[in-house]
Amino acid sequence: MLIVQKFGGSSLANDKLIFNAAQKIINAYNNKNKVVVILSASGNMTDDLINHASKINFNYSKRELDMFLSTGETQSVALMAMALHKLGYPAVSLNCMQAGIFATNNYNNARIEKVEPERILNELDKNNIVIITGFQAINSYNDIVTLGRGGSDTSAVAIAVALNADVCEIYTDVDGIYTADPRIIPSAKKISQINYDQMLELSSLGAVVLHNRSVELAKKYNIKLVVRSSLNDNEGTLIGDVKKVEKTLVNGIAVDKNVAVISIVGLEDEPGMVFKLFSLLSRNKISVDLIIQSIGRQNTKDISFTLAREFLDETLNILERNNDFLRYDHLMSDETVAKLSIVGSGIASNPKIAMMMFEAIYNEGINIKMISTSEIKISILVNEDEVQRAAEAVHKNFIDIQNSK
Amino acid sequence: MLIVQKFGGSSLANDKLIFNAAQKIINAYNNKNKVVVILSASGNMTDDLINHASKINFNYSKRELDMFLSTGETQSVALMAMALHKLGYPAVSLNCMQAGIFATNNYNNARIEKVEPERILNELDKNNIVIITGFQAINSYNDIVTLGRGGSDTSAVAIAVALNADVCEIYTDVDGIYTADPRIIPSAKKISQINYDQMLELSSLGAVVLHNRSVELAKKYNIKLVVRSSLNDNEGTLIGDVKKVEKTLVNGIAVDKNVAVISIVGLEDEPGMVFKLFSLLSRNKISVDLIIQSIGRQNTKDISFTLAREFLDETLNILERNNDFLRYDHLMSDETVAKLSIVGSGIASNPKIAMMMFEAIYNEGINIKMISTSEIKISILVNEDEVQRAAEAVHKNFIDIQNSK
Repeated sequence: MLIVQKFGGSSLANDKLIFNAAQKIINAYNNKNKVVVILSASGNMTDDLINHASKINFNYSKRELDMFLSTGETQSVALMAMALHKLGYPAVSLNCMQAGIFATNNYNNARIEKVEPERILNELDKNNIVIITGFQAINSYNDIVTLGRGGSDTSAVAIAVALNADVCEIYTDVDGIYTADPRIIPSAKKISQINYDQMLELSSLGAVVLHNRSVELAKKYNIKLVVRSSLNDNEGTLIGDVKKVEKTLVNGIAVDKNVAVISIVGLEDEPGMVFKLFSLLSRNKISVDLIIQSIGRQNTKDISFTLAREFLDETLNILERNNDFLRYDHLMSDETVAKLSIVGSGIASNPKIAMMMFEAIYNEGINIKMISTSEIKISILVNEDEVQRAAEAVHKNFIDIQNSK
Repeated sequence: MLIVQKFGGSSLANDKLIFNAAQKIINAYNNKNKVVVILSASGNMTDDLINHASKINFNYSKRELDMFLSTGETQSVALMAMALHKLGYPAVSLNCMQAGIFATNNYNNARIEKVEPERILNELDKNNIVIITGFQAINSYNDIVTLGRGGSDTSAVAIAVALNADVCEIYTDVDGIYTADPRIIPSAKKISQINYDQMLELSSLGAVVLHNRSVELAKKYNIKLVVRSSLNDNEGTLIGDVKKVEKTLVNGIAVDKNVAVISIVGLEDEPGMVFKLFSLLSRNKISVDLIIQSIGRQNTKDISFTLAREFLDETLNILERNNDFLRYDHLMSDETVAKLSIVGSGIASNPKIAMMMFEAIYNEGINIKMISTSEIKISILVNEDEVQRAAEAVHKNFIDIQNSK
């Protein structure tokens, strides 16, 4: 078999953990597999580097930040190769230039376009364990770009696709995908199997276990993903073309605290206005999440949308610069909100579920600021400092009901 | 003018120093020069990384160490570009792959073979200040190699050659080249001009201001070097095709503490033995420094040579493995020695100089373990814990005499 393994920063935060991860790699190699390993930067290194860059220049260039951040994964892969050598195994580290990982031009948030795996295949032919930097790629200017937070998952899947790997194992500090983040909600249950679409909803909701794009890619090329812990031998969660999905009303509850909301008040109610607005944001590489449009007063409408907090200032700026063209009345924004979401294939067909969620929130006396629903999920915005209480209440309500069946 | 500037680790050890170096760069840029900057890793980062690697695997692979170390300079160049942007100047960082710096295959100690400066020239055409990682290059396997301690100087000169630069400025934490290391001997005097050969002798003696290979390259292509401080505007030392060298008996005194000595006792006295010995070491990429051959007993000879301490174990190993072939009696080694050297164009023609050196050492009651002389230098080995006292005594003797003239 050809196995791709990916280890996140929390699995590499110190030398002991590095040797721990090395043991997982060796186990796979000893079972006569070819093994390719993708690594993140260790521990909090990426955050530390961003802080350092901010101190030098608060408005750092995105290109230079990517150059700077790339050193995190480079250090990880070199240390891991040294650790594997120490344990008596052949290994070689490759950076994104050497591994042939190419991406779109946009710094800080590039998208992998292709992997040219010649060097990786050569090293595998020499029986090497191949250790590759995640999170980074080369763009058409031959510059280093990074793939956005969690991007190493996508590196792993893209490499698995290019190598036609049998499985892509994502090692992290939790045992798998849970019905909610067990660090927030201790009563959360592990899911043993889940299909790509459900996982996509879960990760788009801010369940930080997997990078969204990695699941999309895995779905497109039908790569089997396994999410499991680097600290034990528990089975983890299989994400794949799963036929027999467990029957639960709600597969997961997710909390995302990196949320800001912008409301555009009094937008002229004429055809194409929404298209103009979001194509403007898209041209500026601003990703929005939830979008709600409500009827405004006197032939106008109000549009609210959420986005990651780091894009708030830039987005407000863009909107202000384009007021001539968008002709809205005024802007409002709030970055003290958080998003609580539930996801499950039964949601659309069972109106009770939404009701049960709102009931749990109401019983806690928490105010809901925004609601968005789809076929298989419901997301609400609440105050950030109330979101954990809200999540626990919602989770308890669903687990209680499922257990009582 | 096209100016190449190089800043060493001590000039980049914290954010304040980075902005300080940025100001030197801006001064050159504002004077209508094109500016290319080569940076080392900041402060003690290289040493810290080597320590970390040793903790993971004491016998780390040289290839992986180079991959690991390369992150030091990469961080420097990204931060410097951010600092220059902060001050309002256009700048772009390039790593060795982007800058097109190619070297021989040997990890940890590669030699630059060529620079393909297309990208550098493109960025200069866009009026960018171009910031390039020193110390690192690409080898024929497309792997990262490093150039040995101090290698960033050579990066700077090699790039200056490729760009046909008008001058290559080496910024460091001292004001220029001194008659002795002013950190060791406070009475040392700054040299305002020196020619390449004298500088070569000085730097091969362990005067750590400039990487030896950088001076060789500068001499070969007649690149004007200026060594000066990043902390003040003092004039520094010009190293070039200097006609009017200052008339002093001794240009410099240097101390090198990274010295081990190996003696091969009882080598058969037959033709070709010395060639066999040193070609064996050369094939194994071991650089030796001083070599002394003395007459042994009963048709044998003894050979002693010095080398950097990190190569001692490996070299002893190689010699032991090849005893069948070399047929010596036994080996001796010592890594508690240090080298004290004096250099000056007057040495060969004035036998008094050696005498004065030995007299100063004798007056201090210090034992000389080995002596080697050339046209323009005298080197001696003494116990490491006596070398500073020896250096001060020798320096005082020469300065006193020169002042009394």
